[in-house]
Amino acid sequence: TGTPLAPLLAESGLDDHAVEVAFLGADRGVQGEDEHDYGRSLAVVDAMRPEVLLAYEMNGAPLTPQHGSPLRLVVPGWYGMTSVKWLTSIEAVAEPFEGWQQAVAYRYTEDADDPGTPVNRIRVRSMMIPPGIPDFFTRERIVDAGPVTLTGRAWSGNGGIARVEIGVDGQWAIAKLDPPVGEFAWRGWRAEWTATPGEHELACRATDTAGELQPLHPVWNYQGMGNNAVQRVSVTVR
Amino acid sequence: TGTPLAPLLAESGLDDHAVEVAFLGADRGVQGEDEHDYGRSLAVVDAMRPEVLLAYEMNGAPLTPQHGSPLRLVVPGWYGMTSVKWLTSIEAVAEPFEGWQQAVAYRYTEDADDPGTPVNRIRVRSMMIPPGIPDFFTRERIVDAGPVTLTGRAWSGNGGIARVEIGVDGQWAIAKLDPPVGEFAWRGWRAEWTATPGEHELACRATDTAGELQPLHPVWNYQGMGNNAVQRVSVTVR
Repeated sequence: TGTPLAPLLAESGLDDHAVEVAFLGADRGVQGEDEHDYGRSLAVVDAMRPEVLLAYEMNGAPLTPQHGSPLRLVVPGWYGMTSVKWLTSIEAVAEPFEGWQQAVAYRYTEDADDPGTPVNRIRVRSMMIPPGIPDFFTRERIVDAGPVTLTGRAWSGNGGIARVEIGVDGQWAIAKLDPPVGEFAWRGWRAEWTATPGEHELACRATDTAGELQPLHPVWNYQGMGNNAVQRVSVTVR
Repeated sequence: TGTPLAPLLAESGLDDHAVEVAFLGADRGVQGEDEHDYGRSLAVVDAMRPEVLLAYEMNGAPLTPQHGSPLRLVVPGWYGMTSVKWLTSIEAVAEPFEGWQQAVAYRYTEDADDPGTPVNRIRVRSMMIPPGIPDFFTRERIVDAGPVTLTGRAWSGNGGIARVEIGVDGQWAIAKLDPPVGEFAWRGWRAEWTATPGEHELACRATDTAGELQPLHPVWNYQGMGNNAVQRVSVTVR
């Protein structure tokens, strides 16, 4: 719960010199030998999107300190580093913001010297509620033989969810999507599985409306950013 | 927020054969090669204490799944394993409850074969809000020279907080206690420190009204249970 940012920017007289809007938070520290307040920016066109909020409540209660009270930015569809907590300033800037968290930290890079490309929208991803019960230490799951309804969620920052597939021992089948509950909400899904005794590997993967499919294995980058490889769940059926 | 357990036990006709009250939760799994629902018990005298609650709300909102909705046990002053989540049954038993989480898991033991003694009430402990700003990777703190107000909390399951001390480079001084806000609430404390340039180690330690003082180093036991050694914070003053 919050107030849309765009009307505030419009009312404050944002002009044609502005290329970005920079957001600073109250969390100060030293990272990469650079002392700074946590800060991130958005291109003006992204900052003006109607879904971008300044949030002060969550689930009907005031925002808690750990979620960024009294006021935080919320940018649906972007990775969480974008949604600056404990906001202290919002400034339209005529040059690209070069703060450490923008220019250095959150980048897809090949090595320590690569300037790379910015991390921005959330890559398509899905997760499954592991069926059955866990083994405490291995986290493997134990499932009784017979019909099992697998359920989970899928999401993407680049559009809606077009398809979710369930993999059982590497064989993929289409899951049923629940009705969408909002443009930026997780999309529920479910699939029926007849569990047969023995060891199995379950997996799920989503495709978004932009046509992107989750990779079977993590796509390497120097900092391990934006990993959206498929989740795999080891199951023993008894 | 919840309802006291004692009146419910009284109304249900708890009789002299009952030695303990056993609580089972919906979280089932395999631990120690034993498949079981998470379960814990309390001696009748402990279960009947007025502060023991069946909770269904928290901070004015319905209990969330991760906190044990729809109903969980809350036993103030005891380590968290006592406060069984996702309650499915409450049963008065005529013999001590021997569930795995009671008889095997939460014990102070010397080795794998030692039956040990039960973990129960929370040992006296205190924590400090680290002053200044962090270095991201080392978590050391950077503080400007001059007056600094150190603040934190102290608590004990064995009575109130009698004293909190602040250690600066191994020299201890008494902190000022905030007014108590409740029998089972954290006790706030504060202390003034004049930060001088260089490297320092800050620490805090509490003594409870039962006369127990936090140890300077962890007291060894086989499972590392109940560690209440003093917190130490490395600080560089500039």
